[in-house]
Amino acid sequence: MRSLSVFNSVSVDGFFTDANSELGWAYKFGGDAEYNAWVGENAKSGGGMLVYGRKTYDMMVAYWPTPQAMEERPVVAKGINASPKIVFSRRMEKATWNNTTLIKEDPVAAMKKLKAEPGPNLVVMGSGQIVSQLAAAGLVDRYTLPVIPTVLGKGRSMFEGLDRPIDLRLAGTRSFKNGIVVLTYER
Amino acid sequence: MRSLSVFNSVSVDGFFTDANSELGWAYKFGGDAEYNAWVGENAKSGGGMLVYGRKTYDMMVAYWPTPQAMEERPVVAKGINASPKIVFSRRMEKATWNNTTLIKEDPVAAMKKLKAEPGPNLVVMGSGQIVSQLAAAGLVDRYTLPVIPTVLGKGRSMFEGLDRPIDLRLAGTRSFKNGIVVLTYER
Repeated sequence: MRSLSVFNSVSVDGFFTDANSELGWAYKFGGDAEYNAWVGENAKSGGGMLVYGRKTYDMMVAYWPTPQAMEERPVVAKGINASPKIVFSRRMEKATWNNTTLIKEDPVAAMKKLKAEPGPNLVVMGSGQIVSQLAAAGLVDRYTLPVIPTVLGKGRSMFEGLDRPIDLRLAGTRSFKNGIVVLTYER
Repeated sequence: MRSLSVFNSVSVDGFFTDANSELGWAYKFGGDAEYNAWVGENAKSGGGMLVYGRKTYDMMVAYWPTPQAMEERPVVAKGINASPKIVFSRRMEKATWNNTTLIKEDPVAAMKKLKAEPGPNLVVMGSGQIVSQLAAAGLVDRYTLPVIPTVLGKGRSMFEGLDRPIDLRLAGTRSFKNGIVVLTYER
């Protein structure tokens, strides 16, 4: 059985997007070589199959395949573009990003099947509505959450709409000089 | 100038209360002697003047002065009951809890004056609406946030209504065997 992880930077108040549903707020805390190396290590091809909801996919495909991304964040861009990817969307007609499979089926049902098949481990990035559903269904094995030292006040939570609490097991913490603390939890 | 700290347990998704505006959800992760000792150390009398909004005060006064609290959590109860306390409320007529001062003035204006006066350091517990206002006004010097290994899905954020992000400086992290990670930030 392959594992399903969630990888999302969150603010001190628990949001993964800012008030405009953007993810870019979390990137301003770069500039720490050790942290960038850790992120690059995580994003390397072969590390997993990336899983997106429609909104996050749209943001990602507008940035990562561009020359701007290759210049600004070459290691991560190369890794993400090469990785196998899944996007969940009922309405999308075709996924144009390199190495991407479009799944129109219900995310929970599809994920149960995917996890049972052989293949690389699965990693959700962004995609709050997908995370909520998969978490509620008990399908997420691991959460890797870099906590950015910023309070956003407004934004989207990746656990929106959850109808009962989920207890997790702390699996590790790691702090970086830029003030980011990575919290890792397991089911 | 005395310092103003915020001390609040938060869920993995950033809430300090559950969906019913209760704080009790955070206490089920006791049972770790080292963590309980750390909490007791923090709550000891002389550690500060406790600051509450009306809602949190009502919850606190219904529990801490009772025989039940003295039996369940004697160290914290003794410390909290003895500590000097402030409650912000425009409508309350009288604060009946031992050693408590009622302030009817605007919390930001009152806190500016309090910080400029000599006296013990100030600690806000719970009180989301008070934290939001004081944080937005740049009056909070330190946040001590035990992150409980639970996703609540719904609850109240202590930064609700903040109209622009606040960048903080990570001052420390400490993990406990019960899975709680205490994140400390400074302004």
